[in-house]
Amino acid sequence: MSGKKTNAGRFFEDYRLGDVIIHASPRTVKMGERALYHALYPARHALYSSDIFAQDCGLPFSPLDDLVAFHVVFGKTVPDVSLNAVANLGYAEGRWLCPVWPGDTLRAQSTVIGVKENSNGQSGVVYVRTVGLNQHDEAVLEYVRWVMVKKRDFGAAASVAVVPALAKVVEPSALVIPQGLDFSRYNFALAGEPHRMRDYAVGEVIDHVDGVTIEEAEHMLATRLWQNTAKVHFDATQRADGKRLIYGGHVISLARALSFNGLANAQMLAALNAGAHANPCFADDTVRAWSEVLEMAELDAPGVGAIRLRLVATRGAAGDLRGADGKYLPEVLLDLDYWAFIPV
Amino acid sequence: MSGKKTNAGRFFEDYRLGDVIIHASPRTVKMGERALYHALYPARHALYSSDIFAQDCGLPFSPLDDLVAFHVVFGKTVPDVSLNAVANLGYAEGRWLCPVWPGDTLRAQSTVIGVKENSNGQSGVVYVRTVGLNQHDEAVLEYVRWVMVKKRDFGAAASVAVVPALAKVVEPSALVIPQGLDFSRYNFALAGEPHRMRDYAVGEVIDHVDGVTIEEAEHMLATRLWQNTAKVHFDATQRADGKRLIYGGHVISLARALSFNGLANAQMLAALNAGAHANPCFADDTVRAWSEVLEMAELDAPGVGAIRLRLVATRGAAGDLRGADGKYLPEVLLDLDYWAFIPV
Amino acid sequence: MSGKKTNAGRFFEDYRLGDVIIHASPRTVKMGERALYHALYPARHALYSSDIFAQDCGLPFSPLDDLVAFHVVFGKTVPDVSLNAVANLGYAEGRWLCPVWPGDTLRAQSTVIGVKENSNGQSGVVYVRTVGLNQHDEAVLEYVRWVMVKKRDFGAAASVAVVPALAKVVEPSALVIPQGLDFSRYNFALAGEPHRMRDYAVGEVIDHVDGVTIEEAEHMLATRLWQNTAKVHFDATQRADGKRLIYGGHVISLARALSFNGLANAQMLAALNAGAHANPCFADDTVRAWSEVLEMAELDAPGVGAIRLRLVATRGAAGDLRGADGKYLPEVLLDLDYWAFIPV
Repeated sequence: MSGKKTNAGRFFEDYRLGDVIIHASPRTVKMGERALYHALYPARHALYSSDIFAQDCGLPFSPLDDLVAFHVVFGKTVPDVSLNAVANLGYAEGRWLCPVWPGDTLRAQSTVIGVKENSNGQSGVVYVRTVGLNQHDEAVLEYVRWVMVKKRDFGAAASVAVVPALAKVVEPSALVIPQGLDFSRYNFALAGEPHRMRDYAVGEVIDHVDGVTIEEAEHMLATRLWQNTAKVHFDATQRADGKRLIYGGHVISLARALSFNGLANAQMLAALNAGAHANPCFADDTVRAWSEVLEMAELDAPGVGAIRLRLVATRGAAGDLRGADGKYLPEVLLDLDYWAFIPV
Repeated sequence: MSGKKTNAGRFFEDYRLGDVIIHASPRTVKMGERALYHALYPARHALYSSDIFAQDCGLPFSPLDDLVAFHVVFGKTVPDVSLNAVANLGYAEGRWLCPVWPGDTLRAQSTVIGVKENSNGQSGVVYVRTVGLNQHDEAVLEYVRWVMVKKRDFGAAASVAVVPALAKVVEPSALVIPQGLDFSRYNFALAGEPHRMRDYAVGEVIDHVDGVTIEEAEHMLATRLWQNTAKVHFDATQRADGKRLIYGGHVISLARALSFNGLANAQMLAALNAGAHANPCFADDTVRAWSEVLEMAELDAPGVGAIRLRLVATRGAAGDLRGADGKYLPEVLLDLDYWAFIPV
Repeated sequence: MSGKKTNAGRFFEDYRLGDVIIHASPRTVKMGERALYHALYPARHALYSSDIFAQDCGLPFSPLDDLVAFHVVFGKTVPDVSLNAVANLGYAEGRWLCPVWPGDTLRAQSTVIGVKENSNGQSGVVYVRTVGLNQHDEAVLEYVRWVMVKKRDFGAAASVAVVPALAKVVEPSALVIPQGLDFSRYNFALAGEPHRMRDYAVGEVIDHVDGVTIEEAEHMLATRLWQNTAKVHFDATQRADGKRLIYGGHVISLARALSFNGLANAQMLAALNAGAHANPCFADDTVRAWSEVLEMAELDAPGVGAIRLRLVATRGAAGDLRGADGKYLPEVLLDLDYWAFIPV
């Protein structure tokens, strides 16, 4: 049989600084994707649930969840960026730049902004800046992601290492407020909670209480919906233990949805400052979440503030984040640092 | 960690007669929800499957399944009504008042119409009348539901008991016929069965033959889609036996869809007279259903009659309903009493 | 209990040559069905993913996947054709005649074109030609299918056997090119692979590399979505081993989606020449696929060719098709022969 027409994925040597990769399969997203998003995650933020609520917040109607945009764009990059990835190491400088409306067609492209071979000569770290674009060529989302990728030829000489300088946090002034967003007539009763930005304090920690036990069918439906093709999520024969590794983004969406309970008014994602998939997640895990308020900022839109949150997903009870050795505790699945728009 | 911003649910003492509760997360429902409904339940009633069939019945196009309306409205009430419920005791005076069209935005509110503390002093029964409203402030659905709720403080003095007088059955004259509904050109071949109202007899019992084995992923997808947040449906650590309790509404939808086989022309739900979730349902249960014709009525719309049915869902083979002691047999899951519109 | 109003399915004696069967439950399909299709199968063909890509190929927007049309039409036939089928024996002369657009309402009818009693006197083979029609009474799909059906009365005299003459392969000149289809400005980067028709060779075999492990919930959601009511797919009590048999069409869709990897440009299905469900498929099976190029043809539309492919789905590794005895090897699930439109 011939393998020459199938995609075996890129290896470390295949990435050169400045390369621009056009990712395949542009995708039109509509209300079907939204319905599925609500079936897959316990999402209840009112602005993504109700056209009327969104209109009362100055938008033409309810956009698709910001994480739908993220997953669709991320999924497109997988065949080109992470098919041979050993590890998904981090995110930085992520920003949502424009809402995704039902009917929009998204495509994605990535620029290689850093490469650094590991000292073992068997793999290296690749940094890409990915941008998602809509049918009007407007950027809807951008983020930097770095992954560890295997070398094809362990004996090949190392290229010059280039590690990009990345901001630890997106500055509040760099957040892009969706056109028209206005929280001055915000309906707290319909949103589900009375807490506005000023009711939170930096350092406050919120246990989101609820837990969700994950089934294989659920994470596979979700991951396929985003056209993410990484074998480990779908093929039980890939690992010796027969387990399918759950796409890290599934845990992000679960945790974000669970955070409704205590952060119902942190309506829209604005930026992804950093993120770590601390430990792998598998079916039958019961996922819980807690948040810590890191920072707050007033913004130049009526009634709109920005709240910076650490969102932690755990397997089992919420608790500490790291052990005495500084490493993530084994029950920690996700440690995400993001900005959200919230009524001030 | 702080729990003060999260919703711990209301306790018995938190309900006062006449209170009006505005439920959170209004929801725009479209064709995505309908596609999922058809994936989750073996729904085949033609009026909810085909725009053309619905138009031939005098409607502008095919509405969302009446149980979508019910589940969306019910789901919204859960955080405020049944998060601490010990048991879902009953339904009465339910009526579908207006079809829900794709694109409609639903919200829900409940009025406390009864409270009665149990003699043990540890819980009480709360009666609420819930109404679902669309974006035009039209009521699309209303029903009374009563639940047993824990007291927060077992030592607190009992309030005055008020038990509302509820109709045992909605009168045929109180059924609201959707505007334009006309069964005079009804296509029985496309609907799937030749039986009109006059072909049924009061007392006739119909075994719906088919069975469906339930998976955890399915009932969780469904229950989440309705934004129902009750922990027992999602979190396997909530019960000592590690089982997730299946949302009673999931069994209603399963049984109603199964009833197509023998009642394909009982097209639209008109009223919910009474309902009991007789025994809990769990994944791996194989659900079957049977119906009994209770009553029939001619209505003031062309070709439209109303048939009152008892719909019983069972785990395993259909059989008797109650034992010698008058209690539901253990294999009975649901005993529902409803009106449907059917060609006369 | 009465069974007289429920559908027990037809037996062999119930089919008479020339009978036309109108199948129930016409169905309006929209973007919700498409979103579910992408969640259920790893579908990435760009023309069914992006309105913009489809427009660049001369279509008004992205149609629903051709296999959505097939499954919807096939599902409608099940209560009338295969409820008592012992085996699904074959397909022939299948052609997609018109794209299905979101919002279309499909219905189906079948004509009995052959009946042949088996020598054992207990069953017979029924041949039907099924056509799917849209709301404009345009045929969107037609195919011949033959099934083995039980006799009701084993002692009844055999009818005269009529076996229709069926083409082994649809001729390229009989393929119906969707109106406007134009691959002259085809974007290979967005489609995901550079290979055009001329890059393939007759006899070339392509291993599609990826594998998907199937869950019970997934195949039941899919099969229900197509309103397919065959008990064996849903009811774990139907077989002694407690297994649910997976709808053969689920395997077709899985294999077709997997074939993206190596055949990303075989965009649209044109004809179904033949097909065999070689062995039953069950949950926990990991499905892989390989294709063999059988034939190619240039067509009378700009840049459009037709490629005839054998698509084989296997449980476990791809390998040989038949054993020394000429029978399918036990790991072979599907052997499909189809035409697809591809850039020349």
